[in-house]
Amino acid sequence: MTAVDRGASGVLDRVEAARRRRPKLRDTHITSAHGAGGKATATLVDAVFLEALRNPLLEPLEDAAVFAAGTERLALTTDSFVVTPLFFPGGNIGDLAVNGTVNDLAVAGARPLHLACAVILEEGMDIADLRRIVASMAEAATRAGVSIVTGDTKVVQRGRADGCYITTTGVGLVDPGLHLGASLARPGDVVVVTGPIGDHGITVLLARGELDLSADLRSDTAPLSALTARLLAAVNAQGGDGTRDGGGAPGGGAAGGGAAGGGVRAMRDATRGGVATILNEVAKASGVGVVVDEAAVPVRTEVRGACELLGLDPLYVACEGRMVVIVAPEAVDAALAALRADPLGAQSTVIGRIVDDPPGTVLLNTAFGGTRIVDLLVGDPLPRIC
Amino acid sequence: MTAVDRGASGVLDRVEAARRRRPKLRDTHITSAHGAGGKATATLVDAVFLEALRNPLLEPLEDAAVFAAGTERLALTTDSFVVTPLFFPGGNIGDLAVNGTVNDLAVAGARPLHLACAVILEEGMDIADLRRIVASMAEAATRAGVSIVTGDTKVVQRGRADGCYITTTGVGLVDPGLHLGASLARPGDVVVVTGPIGDHGITVLLARGELDLSADLRSDTAPLSALTARLLAAVNAQGGDGTRDGGGAPGGGAAGGGAAGGGVRAMRDATRGGVATILNEVAKASGVGVVVDEAAVPVRTEVRGACELLGLDPLYVACEGRMVVIVAPEAVDAALAALRADPLGAQSTVIGRIVDDPPGTVLLNTAFGGTRIVDLLVGDPLPRIC
Repeated sequence: MTAVDRGASGVLDRVEAARRRRPKLRDTHITSAHGAGGKATATLVDAVFLEALRNPLLEPLEDAAVFAAGTERLALTTDSFVVTPLFFPGGNIGDLAVNGTVNDLAVAGARPLHLACAVILEEGMDIADLRRIVASMAEAATRAGVSIVTGDTKVVQRGRADGCYITTTGVGLVDPGLHLGASLARPGDVVVVTGPIGDHGITVLLARGELDLSADLRSDTAPLSALTARLLAAVNAQGGDGTRDGGGAPGGGAAGGGAAGGGVRAMRDATRGGVATILNEVAKASGVGVVVDEAAVPVRTEVRGACELLGLDPLYVACEGRMVVIVAPEAVDAALAALRADPLGAQSTVIGRIVDDPPGTVLLNTAFGGTRIVDLLVGDPLPRIC
Repeated sequence: MTAVDRGASGVLDRVEAARRRRPKLRDTHITSAHGAGGKATATLVDAVFLEALRNPLLEPLEDAAVFAAGTERLALTTDSFVVTPLFFPGGNIGDLAVNGTVNDLAVAGARPLHLACAVILEEGMDIADLRRIVASMAEAATRAGVSIVTGDTKVVQRGRADGCYITTTGVGLVDPGLHLGASLARPGDVVVVTGPIGDHGITVLLARGELDLSADLRSDTAPLSALTARLLAAVNAQGGDGTRDGGGAPGGGAAGGGAAGGGVRAMRDATRGGVATILNEVAKASGVGVVVDEAAVPVRTEVRGACELLGLDPLYVACEGRMVVIVAPEAVDAALAALRADPLGAQSTVIGRIVDDPPGTVLLNTAFGGTRIVDLLVGDPLPRIC
């Protein structure tokens, strides 16, 4: 945790206590749950990667690391994509890989600059498929205003990959005055999602054709960099000189937010592990509670139906073009107006709030009037959806 | 190719002609040769990736892209590692991945800052092995003076990876006045290698235990950033104010080299495809010929012996801690002195020179007094050595 002027050592103690509650790694071998983005992933990352590589930039385990490079402030993020099938309604592994990395930069408050792309190809892969995938990467990069400036190709034997795996890494510039992070949520803050959740995960699951189900669904994969720029510009304008109109173009940079008093506290794209996992990360990193109103969570009828049939909770299903935003109460109206002005945020809505107690926990007020704990994802109900 | 003041449109025409000679992609499916780093890789990268993603930063296809980020000049590079076996004498996939990316930054003249690391794990992988690999990454990062600041973990089903694949991406800072590149070689320049070649490739091949061969060999995997900093500082000092002593510490930055007149024209680490591939890239990018003196090429007895038995040419065998340096004739003495002052460059030696003719071609003066063309690697004699 970086130094944050929150003036309350009680909060820091609480964060530390939440840390100590992290589960121990008891597994001896990798299981699919370690890749699901939930509890097992967090435990593996803590026990193996963070333990050996520990440094102040890695430690927050945000979607992107933010650091000084000479006189500039950079964000760096990386993701491997192993989605199967490679092609699905609304996208393929190529645009998914570009959008995913652009979004990790965007939610860090960075203006995406350039991407690197490393592909691992399986012997026997159809080069026509590869061309389609690379064409989608090019289109997605153009849409997000970034270039793919360097890359690598490796080939493994037949069966040792599923067509291809793609790793995209992105570099972006971050405004010096901007501070965002899952550890900055405070009681009273509001939880916003920017549209219906779970479209991507259910679309990919159905695209496998292993289930006797079909639905008129498309992945929501999309670049969020214009949306985050617009949001930060608007919320910043509210507390500032009032001359910014919030019309933030994609290249408009990452304005907004004071050192610890920005209207936007944190943004996270709700990918692997879904909204529930993001909220747990916020609750644990900030030592706060999160209360979600189930009836307020936007879920398409088709996604809800598929989830009911499959025994899945939409709160854990991945999106690839939606984000969770934690907003200070006084900035909510401006934030919603800015988000809704962009087609990718048109259905933005408040789904919950940050509370003091119980720290480190996410509670759901169910549609039936009850309350239950929403824990980190356990197991791997949706393998390889990104 | 970026604008370079070489004052000779004839050279540019020649480079363009060499470009047009690039082979067309006739394959319909991926083969292991597409991952070998030779002719098939170059053809695939040209026809599929460069064709769709074309931009001025990607086009030179150097080991790292160099670009402006705000007021700073950054280098960005990425590589996936799919080496098998994961552990071999002298290293494992972990330190290999860190050193490989550090070296791609170093040979671009950058001071490595931070790395991102994305791992694709196979279900069933022994977590104790993963811990050893990550510990090696940590050690290699410390040795190179970089931190791993962000990462990602994915899991694929049993058989869909060999234990793990690792993609490392690095960001570094480049001195504003430094210009290096495979396109900057000029007739009269000298070709240096920094030590015996082929150790890594042969070590990994023998570690597979599939051949009835053994040898007392270790991979040469090592970080070259201190060596490149020392070299650039020394060669720069020669033509500059004379106050730099060439003792360039690892963090000493990437001094040296004028816009098109730096003593060091280009550096490349001789990984996949070996020294022969690097020299072909220089010949083609600069529209020059390269003449190599076979007797001058340093090869360990064990590597030479294994190559003879296996029908391999050491010029194509990967190193992971050696580089090829193209040096202006007047800077050769200073360059060799600087390189030899570092243990990783102690055996640096001149192996050839840049000539006017034939452009785009590498010629070998053999130990038997003949001359033959050294083409780009064809096929994939050494699959998955990095």
